[in-house]
Amino acid sequence: MDSQQFRSAAHQMTDYIIDYLDNIRNRRVTPELPPGYLRPLLPSQAPEKPDKWGDILKDVENLIMPGVTHWHHPNFHAYYPSGNTYPSILGDMLCDAIGCIGFTWMASPACTELEVIMMDWLGQLLGLPESFLARSNGPGGGVIQGTASESVLVSLLAARTRSLRHHKENFPCKDPFPVKSLVAYCSDQAHISVERAGMMGAVTVRKLTTDENLSLRGATLCQAIEEDIANGLVPFFVVGTIGATPACSTDNIRELGEVCNENGLWLHIDAAYAGAAFVCEEYRDLMDGVELADSFNFNPHKWLLVSFDCSAMWVKDAADVINAFNLDPIYLKYEREGQQPDYRHWQIPLGRRFRSLKLWFVMRLYGSEGLQAHIRKQVSLAHEFESYVKEDLRFEIVAPVTLGLVCFRIKGDEELTKSLLKKLNDEGVVHLVPGAFRNIYYLRLAVCSRFTESEDIKKSWNEIKKQTDSVLSEKK
Amino acid sequence: MDSQQFRSAAHQMTDYIIDYLDNIRNRRVTPELPPGYLRPLLPSQAPEKPDKWGDILKDVENLIMPGVTHWHHPNFHAYYPSGNTYPSILGDMLCDAIGCIGFTWMASPACTELEVIMMDWLGQLLGLPESFLARSNGPGGGVIQGTASESVLVSLLAARTRSLRHHKENFPCKDPFPVKSLVAYCSDQAHISVERAGMMGAVTVRKLTTDENLSLRGATLCQAIEEDIANGLVPFFVVGTIGATPACSTDNIRELGEVCNENGLWLHIDAAYAGAAFVCEEYRDLMDGVELADSFNFNPHKWLLVSFDCSAMWVKDAADVINAFNLDPIYLKYEREGQQPDYRHWQIPLGRRFRSLKLWFVMRLYGSEGLQAHIRKQVSLAHEFESYVKEDLRFEIVAPVTLGLVCFRIKGDEELTKSLLKKLNDEGVVHLVPGAFRNIYYLRLAVCSRFTESEDIKKSWNEIKKQTDSVLSEKK
Repeated sequence: MDSQQFRSAAHQMTDYIIDYLDNIRNRRVTPELPPGYLRPLLPSQAPEKPDKWGDILKDVENLIMPGVTHWHHPNFHAYYPSGNTYPSILGDMLCDAIGCIGFTWMASPACTELEVIMMDWLGQLLGLPESFLARSNGPGGGVIQGTASESVLVSLLAARTRSLRHHKENFPCKDPFPVKSLVAYCSDQAHISVERAGMMGAVTVRKLTTDENLSLRGATLCQAIEEDIANGLVPFFVVGTIGATPACSTDNIRELGEVCNENGLWLHIDAAYAGAAFVCEEYRDLMDGVELADSFNFNPHKWLLVSFDCSAMWVKDAADVINAFNLDPIYLKYEREGQQPDYRHWQIPLGRRFRSLKLWFVMRLYGSEGLQAHIRKQVSLAHEFESYVKEDLRFEIVAPVTLGLVCFRIKGDEELTKSLLKKLNDEGVVHLVPGAFRNIYYLRLAVCSRFTESEDIKKSWNEIKKQTDSVLSEKK
Repeated sequence: MDSQQFRSAAHQMTDYIIDYLDNIRNRRVTPELPPGYLRPLLPSQAPEKPDKWGDILKDVENLIMPGVTHWHHPNFHAYYPSGNTYPSILGDMLCDAIGCIGFTWMASPACTELEVIMMDWLGQLLGLPESFLARSNGPGGGVIQGTASESVLVSLLAARTRSLRHHKENFPCKDPFPVKSLVAYCSDQAHISVERAGMMGAVTVRKLTTDENLSLRGATLCQAIEEDIANGLVPFFVVGTIGATPACSTDNIRELGEVCNENGLWLHIDAAYAGAAFVCEEYRDLMDGVELADSFNFNPHKWLLVSFDCSAMWVKDAADVINAFNLDPIYLKYEREGQQPDYRHWQIPLGRRFRSLKLWFVMRLYGSEGLQAHIRKQVSLAHEFESYVKEDLRFEIVAPVTLGLVCFRIKGDEELTKSLLKKLNDEGVVHLVPGAFRNIYYLRLAVCSRFTESEDIKKSWNEIKKQTDSVLSEKK
């Protein structure tokens, strides 16, 4: 494919994308094809000679699209949102074209420098403490990770290294304690990435019980730490969650921060979904106490209109992270090292894309007011849905509606709600996933697509009512 | 930005990309700006109101491009190549537009299924054993990881879990051995990602001495294993490298495989760069013995014309990987689980992009013959450069030229070669990085850009000769 063929193909792809997104309402949200549908439709091996571009575009529509779950359909309400905007697509096009791998400053200075500055812009938009920002000229700063899971793992490993180092400094004559005596903590609402990071890092993770608001409190953490120390273990790391996956609940960050600071534990804040809301001042109460944390993470690729992957992480002292991974082969050395970050030391992989371009494009083409308007609109749509649920006495709301998530169920036996979910997902008009806490089974309705309007929320609600009628009439 | 504005912006971006790549020869390879150049040129915070698209595109050219190291410049010879092709850009555009997060089959069936099939296509192109392919209906299969570093970490963690499980099965009454008694091995030429994976996984990594061809041999591994067992340690994991970073050397995979199979160690093959060459039968000798490995990885995003990130990993028994990370929260459960892979169990992050699209586009729009032609051309360009070096008696080749990499130095004191590198990179006409083994300091010239032609190799050589003249005249 030469330049001229690319020009024509890129125009066709642009038209295809616009047509797809403008008319996404005409598709089912979820596919109705069985597992394994695709293999019989494709050749068993790659072609020897080049295929024609036109045939590929036809195959996209005829073979791929029928198997896609459309995350940007206005009636897609599963999981949490995934970012998708035109500015972000443009940023990724440029990222691919430059095609640099920014593991060191020298490997493409602009790639590192724009990221440093964009993480400052973004941190300011969220109202993060200056100690997290590179512009403060302190030891802190931001970095774009791939996912919130990687941010948890990076901070856990950094905390592990810091604990072992402190032990060595404090007790130079003692043997290092075994890694397996290290204990990390999170709430029973925390994302599975915390447990997974514990498995990977070979440390124990204790999931602590939350209070009646599904919030982990300082006293609970304090008690667990005391128990573990009494048992000869070494508490070292806490993940505080803001906007957890099951019901968008939030730990008491200030209380956790005070306990962590007093006991020398690393506090990492996982605000993967909710963090985007802090572009609006009125939601910042949720992160009260953030200045006590060692690291903070949220995903612009979830709710801030940036395409996956773009997970924003800030640390208060970058040296803690760098020390955990620093290995310096000769082929990555260069003159003038040390004046700008070499981001390869901040992350699990070595290679990295020029992801700050899409963040830059999104912030510039929406402006802070555009980003705020997006968040506020989606929150109001969640409350609109909540009002419909509350008016229908067959349903109950199981947790306070927070940001863009509504958790609800049919009153009575949980089988009713399970049947409702099956009917909804079989029908494909809307898509939801279930949640559960304390033996309560419920449905999560997240406002996800940037195309979702009040009319779509009404449509989702009407579909839920219709299928509920069916469930309840079958029961009789 | 609405659809119509996007159409116009995407056309402009397409033109910009074509103009950038068609005229990349007119730019310096490396920037001449000091660290920190960008911050004074950008506003200190995001705008409140949206900026104009035209201003952004101007800023890209005026502020970003002067700070870019141009990895696709024909005279960029540093590191190893990074993929960048028009089909790949088109695939990523579609990936961004669909914007699904394929952590389970249900989260977007086509995303999982196309990946399964593309990994089969790719495995066949490389001539991998059927046991690695999903189509064999055995326990093996392929997955797209972000980077080779993540593939090493995933396989190390899977091997760690397998070792602990085997120990438990074999000695049900004994305590599990501590993780820190586990020992992994690689050659002294292996990538730093092996040591880093060891640090993350809290196990010891021993770098073993290679033979005169920089190749790790079975006998060396065998001896290390015996020593460690005698010291009460538990050998569990070996990384065999094909096409190492310093000098593109290759371990003796067959010998390592035999030792691993005999002793129950996991053999992971890291062919990050070299693996792409196996689309040509004539290079497959390098992977002789691959059928003895447990996992195999190479990066299509390096030398197979796919944009970063796309790291292809195959495992012989997927259950080993899945068992290492498997956690199943309710919001990820769905009907019909288990018939297709849920790739979240195969990787470090939870989220994942629809990366198989770009792989599909590249394989279809190049065809296997196009991919082969690309590899053969770049290898021949490396040999062309080698011939120039050999004709000039001031230089020596320090390792056999393998695939697209030439390792050379000025004869005599290493300061000469160091001065040469500094002059070359200051001048910015070409870009190279250094290498070192056994106290030999040298320069690595990798054929990287798909735009590199014989004329470009001549230009690189002439620049090297010119700067060498300068180094040697200054010495006198």
